Amino acid sequence: MNFIGNSRLNVFLWQLMKTVSIIGTGNVASHLATSLFSKGVHIHRVFGRQKKSGEELAKLCNSHFVSDWNAFDTVGVDVVLIAVNDDQIENVSAHLKIGQAIIAHTSGTVDMNVLERHSKTGVFYPLQTFSKENEIDVSVVPFCIEGSTTIVETELTDLAKALSHDVRLVNSETRKLIHLAAVFACNFTNHMWAISNQILEETNQDLTILKPLITETITKAFNSSPKEAQTGPASRNDQRVMKKQLESLQGNTLFQSIYSDVSESIKKMKNE
Amino acid sequence: MNFIGNSRLNVFLWQLMKTVSIIGTGNVASHLATSLFSKGVHIHRVFGRQKKSGEELAKLCNSHFVSDWNAFDTVGVDVVLIAVNDDQIENVSAHLKIGQAIIAHTSGTVDMNVLERHSKTGVFYPLQTFSKENEIDVSVVPFCIEGSTTIVETELTDLAKALSHDVRLVNSETRKLIHLAAVFACNFTNHMWAISNQILEETNQDLTILKPLITETITKAFNSSPKEAQTGPASRNDQRVMKKQLESLQGNTLFQSIYSDVSESIKKMKNE
Repeated sequence: MNFIGNSRLNVFLWQLMKTVSIIGTGNVASHLATSLFSKGVHIHRVFGRQKKSGEELAKLCNSHFVSDWNAFDTVGVDVVLIAVNDDQIENVSAHLKIGQAIIAHTSGTVDMNVLERHSKTGVFYPLQTFSKENEIDVSVVPFCIEGSTTIVETELTDLAKALSHDVRLVNSETRKLIHLAAVFACNFTNHMWAISNQILEETNQDLTILKPLITETITKAFNSSPKEAQTGPASRNDQRVMKKQLESLQGNTLFQSIYSDVSESIKKMKNE
Repeated sequence: MNFIGNSRLNVFLWQLMKTVSIIGTGNVASHLATSLFSKGVHIHRVFGRQKKSGEELAKLCNSHFVSDWNAFDTVGVDVVLIAVNDDQIENVSAHLKIGQAIIAHTSGTVDMNVLERHSKTGVFYPLQTFSKENEIDVSVVPFCIEGSTTIVETELTDLAKALSHDVRLVNSETRKLIHLAAVFACNFTNHMWAISNQILEETNQDLTILKPLITETITKAFNSSPKEAQTGPASRNDQRVMKKQLESLQGNTLFQSIYSDVSESIKKMKNE
């Protein structure tokens, strides 16, 4: 029987018949392992250095925890997911026995070719920030997939589709740009709020006063585009307000520099 | 009968017995006039330079549009709200006849004392970004109130409470800091998304790929604090990724400068 081209059936088969092992016991590893397990995927092994969290995670997905590379066999395993810190991926790859399993990492910034000593390699990158505290709806998380061959890409795509409606084939170069965009859209956005919070600490207000405004800003940006939705002193080139606000930031040259550069960039983009 | 101290009754009386005139026909003027009208407040006059939008707005709130200062009487009016561009507020104030009405502007950045030729002055600042396209739930918009006397503050507070559950007494200095915080939290945040969008244009992706991540970033920031919720290359001081991402931004020195300064600020705040 040939199931190629029958994507939904392949995804279903993944859930029933396929086997995944996970390397890592952190937030990404935990969310992926438990989500895959909840979809019926068999989690063969959980590997990690942290015995306590590793054993807890293995228990959650009816798996076995190992912390010794000799005990980490990949025979009969379809995919090994490496969900460790970026700078440890190559090191983990070097420890893995050469075999038939697809070896895929879950990083936004690391080239697929750091895994190239293995024959079937890939990337399985969930574009989301995972934390212990918050439940994530994995079904809407975009998965960026890359594979060393078309067959590997199909296998990893089917695995991702078992979890999410949003699965995209993305090469390493594009994935790095997406990650860079995410740094601006999330890490830097979050820091803008951190700066706001620090400014508000000088008053008797806190960040909750800005929540309706932040929510509406998102709505407007996604209803049209952020460029069209831009408002504020820089957007209307209000020199008086910008000068006064820079003065208010006296004593914090980094905040002043951010204020100036972002204002300049808003004005420049408006005129483009 | 003395209703002072009976806040809910005062708010109710506002809705039944008080009279407001609005100067301006833009987004803030429109939202305030129609919201107040919908709560039962009588809108005596709508004043503006734009005849068409002014007449439309006046019709929406069963009012009369005027565009001649001589026709703008304030006798019997409790509050005149000035909802025009910041740099026009003082000019409008100069045109207004001296009378018994409270004269209040709606700006985040302008001192209350630009209105000081009048005897009863105040600020009625809704902390939200209004646009023609989007409906706003005014009941959750924070209103920052300031008044030249305690009685004026009480009157403006009662008027704001007719619209919103979130009404705060805030002096001019604090209001300016709140506005500055809002510039970072909203205008600058929106620009971070605009930069993301521009980066994504180099790929075949668009900003929707980042929406689940942006939504989760907000959730995390408000569940703890933005400072505690900070993640990303700068937060973990990942020099390799930061160097590569700066290289990716080659050709756009403003984006590079923003990347460096925000990363530096994230690192600095983490160590404070």
